[in-house]
Amino acid sequence: MTNVKSYIKEHKQRFLNELIELLKIPSISADSAYKNDVLKTADEIKISLEKAGCDHVEICKTAGYPIVYGEKTIDKNLPTVLVYGHYDVQPPDPLDLWHSPPFEPIIKKTETHPEGAIFARGACDDKGQMYMHVKAMEFMTTTNQLPCNVKFMIEGEEEVGSSNLAIFVKENQEKLKNDVILISDTGMIAPDVPSITTGLRGLSYVEVEVTGPNRDLHSGLYGGAVANPINVLAKMIASLHDENNHITIPGFYDKVEELSKQERQHMAKAPFNLEEYKKALDINAVYGEAGYTTNERNSIRPTLDVNGIWGGYTGEGAKTVIASKAFAKISMRLVPHQNWEEITQLFKTHFESIAPPGVTVKVKPHHGGQGYVTPIDSIGYQAASKAYQDTFGKTPIPQRSGGSIPIVSLFEQELKSKTILMGFGLDSDAIHSPNEHFGIFNYLKGIETIPLFYKYFTELSK
Amino acid sequence: MTNVKSYIKEHKQRFLNELIELLKIPSISADSAYKNDVLKTADEIKISLEKAGCDHVEICKTAGYPIVYGEKTIDKNLPTVLVYGHYDVQPPDPLDLWHSPPFEPIIKKTETHPEGAIFARGACDDKGQMYMHVKAMEFMTTTNQLPCNVKFMIEGEEEVGSSNLAIFVKENQEKLKNDVILISDTGMIAPDVPSITTGLRGLSYVEVEVTGPNRDLHSGLYGGAVANPINVLAKMIASLHDENNHITIPGFYDKVEELSKQERQHMAKAPFNLEEYKKALDINAVYGEAGYTTNERNSIRPTLDVNGIWGGYTGEGAKTVIASKAFAKISMRLVPHQNWEEITQLFKTHFESIAPPGVTVKVKPHHGGQGYVTPIDSIGYQAASKAYQDTFGKTPIPQRSGGSIPIVSLFEQELKSKTILMGFGLDSDAIHSPNEHFGIFNYLKGIETIPLFYKYFTELSK
Repeated sequence: MTNVKSYIKEHKQRFLNELIELLKIPSISADSAYKNDVLKTADEIKISLEKAGCDHVEICKTAGYPIVYGEKTIDKNLPTVLVYGHYDVQPPDPLDLWHSPPFEPIIKKTETHPEGAIFARGACDDKGQMYMHVKAMEFMTTTNQLPCNVKFMIEGEEEVGSSNLAIFVKENQEKLKNDVILISDTGMIAPDVPSITTGLRGLSYVEVEVTGPNRDLHSGLYGGAVANPINVLAKMIASLHDENNHITIPGFYDKVEELSKQERQHMAKAPFNLEEYKKALDINAVYGEAGYTTNERNSIRPTLDVNGIWGGYTGEGAKTVIASKAFAKISMRLVPHQNWEEITQLFKTHFESIAPPGVTVKVKPHHGGQGYVTPIDSIGYQAASKAYQDTFGKTPIPQRSGGSIPIVSLFEQELKSKTILMGFGLDSDAIHSPNEHFGIFNYLKGIETIPLFYKYFTELSK
Repeated sequence: MTNVKSYIKEHKQRFLNELIELLKIPSISADSAYKNDVLKTADEIKISLEKAGCDHVEICKTAGYPIVYGEKTIDKNLPTVLVYGHYDVQPPDPLDLWHSPPFEPIIKKTETHPEGAIFARGACDDKGQMYMHVKAMEFMTTTNQLPCNVKFMIEGEEEVGSSNLAIFVKENQEKLKNDVILISDTGMIAPDVPSITTGLRGLSYVEVEVTGPNRDLHSGLYGGAVANPINVLAKMIASLHDENNHITIPGFYDKVEELSKQERQHMAKAPFNLEEYKKALDINAVYGEAGYTTNERNSIRPTLDVNGIWGGYTGEGAKTVIASKAFAKISMRLVPHQNWEEITQLFKTHFESIAPPGVTVKVKPHHGGQGYVTPIDSIGYQAASKAYQDTFGKTPIPQRSGGSIPIVSLFEQELKSKTILMGFGLDSDAIHSPNEHFGIFNYLKGIETIPLFYKYFTELSK
């Protein structure tokens, strides 16, 4: 593919500036206070797709935040690539841990990113990675090298469960018809170790509420005589793992895919340094399910984590109170074959069943999605692999990710096509954390690699 | 004692108005944002003591909030009563559960308070009960019926541990010299069942911090592979009680006073209706240490309660994050002979010792105090008992309270005098909770009963 490198070199500053402008808008889908910002971001995406050469760009209304759709059809007989991404971002808190404001992007050099990285919420997840596709599209149209048809579907509710996208996909199967789905919302092993994500974990996210007495009580007058919702919640959460860190919910593991010894040996080949891993996180030991390695624990095994907990007095100083209520947000990462709705029900039944006398427990299912695995012998995977070989000079390593993109399995079910996950972020980019960033090298490498995927996918489809 | 009833009847409205004005000032000692309000309250107390007839009223500076001191000496050969109270209040949150703003006092009739009750933070604990003594003093001086000498010591840090009062008492033993200490900061069994508190529990209040990875992490990429500080904190808290709800901290029970069968039988005579207790709290069952009744659990047995817990994402919607840190505020109620500093150390040592690999744990001792028991054969107790008999027509029941007034045991140690706890509040007055209130009947009954204590204490001291 001619002059993609020189085109990027020529337009590098603009590519960075455009992304920085996009990152300035706090499109936090989880917090309704940012509604107008999320909507404004959708408008910006529409404009950028039009500039990139898409026809019929539209903002499709949903019950929640809109989906930006755009397409360019050059020949009905050529294959069609559907690009999916999201323009919403995670909440930035805890704010005090950010070294610079999350929505005032700045470029800083780091050990991992000697060429500099853009620091901002959404820099990597997913505005930066999504925008690589917009710029790759611009390159292909501007230089008349678009080899096939393209459809863009950029949503604004990925961080809150994509429930309206699911409806949109079901209702627009013809419009979204494609031969392969391309997503950059995952990571690669290292800047010099390209990888393609072949598996994603499913997710079940719930919120629990434990209610004891009908009002906050004085812990001196009532302490020890009534069930304390916080103590009870702690006991209930603690009981969800046994001494080997296996999850104790009855039936939880019934459908878990057990990988063969061979597959696990293959996985073990991926470069991983436990000491560096611990050092990067500043921990003296890793922790997890007995009988599995760190890379297995966070990819092929299901997990249960409390993502948030609150109750009672959390202000300055002391308050001797027994709270009336205690709350927790709990998410379970699921592996292929575990059904998230079934797991959510198993959790609800179990958690309510272990409530001791003196409290009432509510479990509110929040959202979820199925896990996903993609075969490495598909045309899509092969095309991606060749693209990486051209731009990185190395064959990418197939890897399972611990993360979840719930919508991917729904795409396969509704649109009957496979998804290729070309991720350019790094684990150390701190997505969902303070000081999220995205390497300039990774950003530009993505823009360089994506057009080659189109080229090879079209050739291999002949 | 002549015409106390008629004096109260005549000045009832003013007594109410003066207290209401005092309750309008948010003197929250735990939150430095209210510093000026706490200081303003001290000034108001000074003025009210002067109006009530005290000589030498002064605002005594401390390292924290000041102590208001006032005295009236009529005859060095007569006994001296030292009145203690506090003008600071608990934080009012959760604000959304208040039916009227906590610092905009209103009078409402309730089932328990047919004559009406004042709803406001501090109405009962302790502004209302403290102010009964100021008004009783006013009555005795105005009508020339003060039978002995009086000293007032009203502090502003009771809700945060009275650490500066402790220093003040140690440094002013001569100034504070007295024959008996009188405090109204406890409760009575029911409006028609007067009682005198003969025991208080000690307190140890700590804050714990569990730190895992050095930053918040994506729960998909790291979930199951690193220790989650919230899950770990829950496990650690859960382990502090065994299946019989005994506290598992080694040595915790070593010095606990075991009451005789006879004493427990005596206690069991206090009127108590478990069904009404559960109904009032809207709970289907009580909960607590095996082998003890509800009244024993909250008075003669030590307890451990989490008063607050927080960590991770607690906002609207969902965030799939593993928090770097999780926190809890934990208080232990102690019984006589348990040393709070020793117990705090036992907790710290134990809690740090049970931290699993992959996290670090910090325990920050907050404040505490010793438990206290007063004998019912003392002159002070007898005088109080006779006073109640006159105003209620009944002999008050001696009862152990589950609450703590850490300073009481220090008074005995430093000032070598016993404390009489004449409480006029009710358990249902919701102290430390939303909608705290104090019955007008109780308030006026206190003002009526206190002068009689002075009278009988002086007579019995002859």
